Amino acid sequence: MAAPAIDVWFTMGSTYTFLTVSRIDAMARAAGVAIRLRPFRTVGPLTGATQLPFLPGTAKMHYMWRDIGRRVALHGLRASLPVPYPAPSPPRANRVALVGMAEGWGPDYVRAAYRLWFEQGIGTGGEENLRLALAECGQADGTERILALAESEAIVQELDRETGEARRLGLFGSPSFVVGGEVFWGDDHLEDAIRWARQGRL
Amino acid sequence: MAAPAIDVWFTMGSTYTFLTVSRIDAMARAAGVAIRLRPFRTVGPLTGATQLPFLPGTAKMHYMWRDIGRRVALHGLRASLPVPYPAPSPPRANRVALVGMAEGWGPDYVRAAYRLWFEQGIGTGGEENLRLALAECGQADGTERILALAESEAIVQELDRETGEARRLGLFGSPSFVVGGEVFWGDDHLEDAIRWARQGRL
Repeated sequence: MAAPAIDVWFTMGSTYTFLTVSRIDAMARAAGVAIRLRPFRTVGPLTGATQLPFLPGTAKMHYMWRDIGRRVALHGLRASLPVPYPAPSPPRANRVALVGMAEGWGPDYVRAAYRLWFEQGIGTGGEENLRLALAECGQADGTERILALAESEAIVQELDRETGEARRLGLFGSPSFVVGGEVFWGDDHLEDAIRWARQGRL
Repeated sequence: MAAPAIDVWFTMGSTYTFLTVSRIDAMARAAGVAIRLRPFRTVGPLTGATQLPFLPGTAKMHYMWRDIGRRVALHGLRASLPVPYPAPSPPRANRVALVGMAEGWGPDYVRAAYRLWFEQGIGTGGEENLRLALAECGQADGTERILALAESEAIVQELDRETGEARRLGLFGSPSFVVGGEVFWGDDHLEDAIRWARQGRL
């Protein structure tokens, strides 16, 4: 029987996804659960929303930073909050991630890009984040090739297909965890998703 | 030193609040934490939103029922999902709750009203729910007095004041838990709120 598996759907513009990519590897290893990182373009195509999930000056945005801050402390992570939001270009960051998933360095790139955003304030998808994150995951020499490939029609279409699949799965936010047909939304449901992958219930 | 305390802010139109009112008493008792139920009018005055939090046909609404269903099973609760949504008149249900909080039967009424909604599909704030819930909490004889009092200027204004206080606290959804200056949003953060009330951190 195959090991239980979780598809982690996300966009690199999502703040809460920082918590997930920072802690999921150790959790999945400890639980014996396989994970697959699957970027989608942005939340907009899933929900039809034309606004960002968090708007400056709103109570919800204020809460989001405090909530993330509490969880950064709980999990012993490093972050300098609030980080610049929105990030420069989540779709571009996600296209580079797709290239990386095919070539094997994707998960390292996603973690490095989030670390740069949350520790140093260098937002995902921007030129500086892309170059530094690729260097951090051993792809400095391939940077120009990778950035060109990320803008190719094949990768643009692959991200569109993945985004369509996320919509078909009923996803509407990042991160979302899919275990068999079961969807869990939000980093604070990561433990639930792992439990479901192992035992088929909460 | 006073026992640690949690203010539970909510509107009786909120679906997730069913989970909270169904389980918080036992949890608070076990943890030695005092709780105070504080209804506000609706989410709209807090956020400026003119739409319901969940709209028919959306992925988010579909997810909400499944998410609640999983938690109903986890907590061993009873519910016949999905329940009719929106409920007939959450503001009216909240005004009756305010009367009850002053007279001592408020928490029992809130639980009874939610049980009627989630077990029998009789939505909060409607005539049938009001009468049955008041009867369930021993107020059958006072029903006419209570329903009239709930429409009085004093109670309307008190609910407005409480709603204003919820906005000042930075709340934007139901249920929200306030512990000292710390806000936790959502039934799935109830455990966090209790932990914070006891130890001042997650």
